[in-house]
Amino acid sequence: MTNQQCVAFQGEPGAYSEETALEYFDQSVDTLPCHAFEDVFSAVSSGRATHGVLPIENSLTGSIHRNYDLLLRNDLHIVGEYHYRVSHCLLAQPSVELSELRRVHSHPQALAQCEASLACLGLEPVAEADTAGSARWLHETGARSDGAIASQRAAQVYDLAILARNLEDNPANYTRFLILANTPLEITALEPENYKTSIVFSMPNRPGILFKAMSVFALRDIDLTKIESRPIPGKPWEYMFYIDFAGYVRAPVCDRALEHLTELTVFLRILGSYPRHRVEYYSL
Amino acid sequence: MTNQQCVAFQGEPGAYSEETALEYFDQSVDTLPCHAFEDVFSAVSSGRATHGVLPIENSLTGSIHRNYDLLLRNDLHIVGEYHYRVSHCLLAQPSVELSELRRVHSHPQALAQCEASLACLGLEPVAEADTAGSARWLHETGARSDGAIASQRAAQVYDLAILARNLEDNPANYTRFLILANTPLEITALEPENYKTSIVFSMPNRPGILFKAMSVFALRDIDLTKIESRPIPGKPWEYMFYIDFAGYVRAPVCDRALEHLTELTVFLRILGSYPRHRVEYYSL
Repeated sequence: MTNQQCVAFQGEPGAYSEETALEYFDQSVDTLPCHAFEDVFSAVSSGRATHGVLPIENSLTGSIHRNYDLLLRNDLHIVGEYHYRVSHCLLAQPSVELSELRRVHSHPQALAQCEASLACLGLEPVAEADTAGSARWLHETGARSDGAIASQRAAQVYDLAILARNLEDNPANYTRFLILANTPLEITALEPENYKTSIVFSMPNRPGILFKAMSVFALRDIDLTKIESRPIPGKPWEYMFYIDFAGYVRAPVCDRALEHLTELTVFLRILGSYPRHRVEYYSL
Repeated sequence: MTNQQCVAFQGEPGAYSEETALEYFDQSVDTLPCHAFEDVFSAVSSGRATHGVLPIENSLTGSIHRNYDLLLRNDLHIVGEYHYRVSHCLLAQPSVELSELRRVHSHPQALAQCEASLACLGLEPVAEADTAGSARWLHETGARSDGAIASQRAAQVYDLAILARNLEDNPANYTRFLILANTPLEITALEPENYKTSIVFSMPNRPGILFKAMSVFALRDIDLTKIESRPIPGKPWEYMFYIDFAGYVRAPVCDRALEHLTELTVFLRILGSYPRHRVEYYSL
């Protein structure tokens, strides 16, 4: 990877999404903070960034459904995935000791995920708009009784010290990020099981139709890794289905399955084929 | 239905959930406002209410996923469903004319659903914590340049006038509510197609297992109306599946399907069988 790459992410510098970009690409890659998830898409479409990173699912809290809708509404391609291990760090001014802290600022979800640890340390949680923003606030004010829960990256960006790592109560805390680009990945590999493909489709509202759609994959021993449904606005209780399956789109068996699927769908779009990210997960 | 029934709902008096309770039961039923969705469950469990109403899905914005988690975490039974047509009303002080209004207060989602109508009327949206709370605020302050978007019921509760109805940009706007109680419904009817059953289950993480679970229903011509998945905390990328199907649990074909399903699942719970609510939907 070269330094000409620029990765758009949602949030302030030091956000978990930025740390993901640096882990996936390279610590020296350029990053572009964006206000909203929509802006990540437009940054890539317009060429201001070569790639975008988009959180799509957390292993504790579930799918980020709005981002599924954005994948459909935009024309970008998924070219990668990354399972980011969410490790919440407790940040403070460099010379401050843990015993001096009274309050801890962060996003409500980060505070909730560290509830037991914070109670143990006797620290009062204070809800803020985001994690990296809390670290920036700490840096700007120089507050000495206040800490922030944010990423390791945020400590670097805002010159703060890391007083504790892995503050999260449940270590099985992963966020799956998608890597987006303007053009699909060219895959010529021979091991379909090392790849994943994401598609979205809709079908006529008929009994048994989802079963038939799944048989397209099951009858060819293609493993589904995720199914998600989203409402179709204007059609109450009809759905767009998002499916991830093992394999890449040009592998003959996947190609035939997708051909078969078009016999059932009224709409089908391939969102992308990309290398599967495998890690050893903490599991309870 | 008798007046001894008391229905718990989340929100302030005049909330859309309260209007749902009055439409589903009877205009004279007692209602119990609850601060959080959790409190609706505990009000019914403890006997302070005989029933609860719980929004589970909106036809435009999708499932309310946290409420799926609460169904699993609590022991209540689903005894009914209701498709509530969301009709946003513009409320103001009784003597105020539309031309006097400058601002409109409401929950951000209600404001977003009325975006085009508000722009047409030249009214500035102001985000508040909830719809009925905005109506209450209007009543308490007597503000004459301010309106609120809320339910017809909120106009009654807070002595406000309805200046406009159906302010929503997309009329295909329905919320599906579940009716909850401490004991399951006894169903002895003979027409399974007039009933629905909701279940939740988990399965070992094996290729093709969801296809097999769906075949249990498809091979018996049992129509699935909804599938939803939620993460299992501590097991990254493993899921609880929530399925609604046509039929009631004691109908022989459904009973056999559920028996068959237990061969595949490690956990299975029947959340309830209840009369299916059929309405003529607006569809675009």
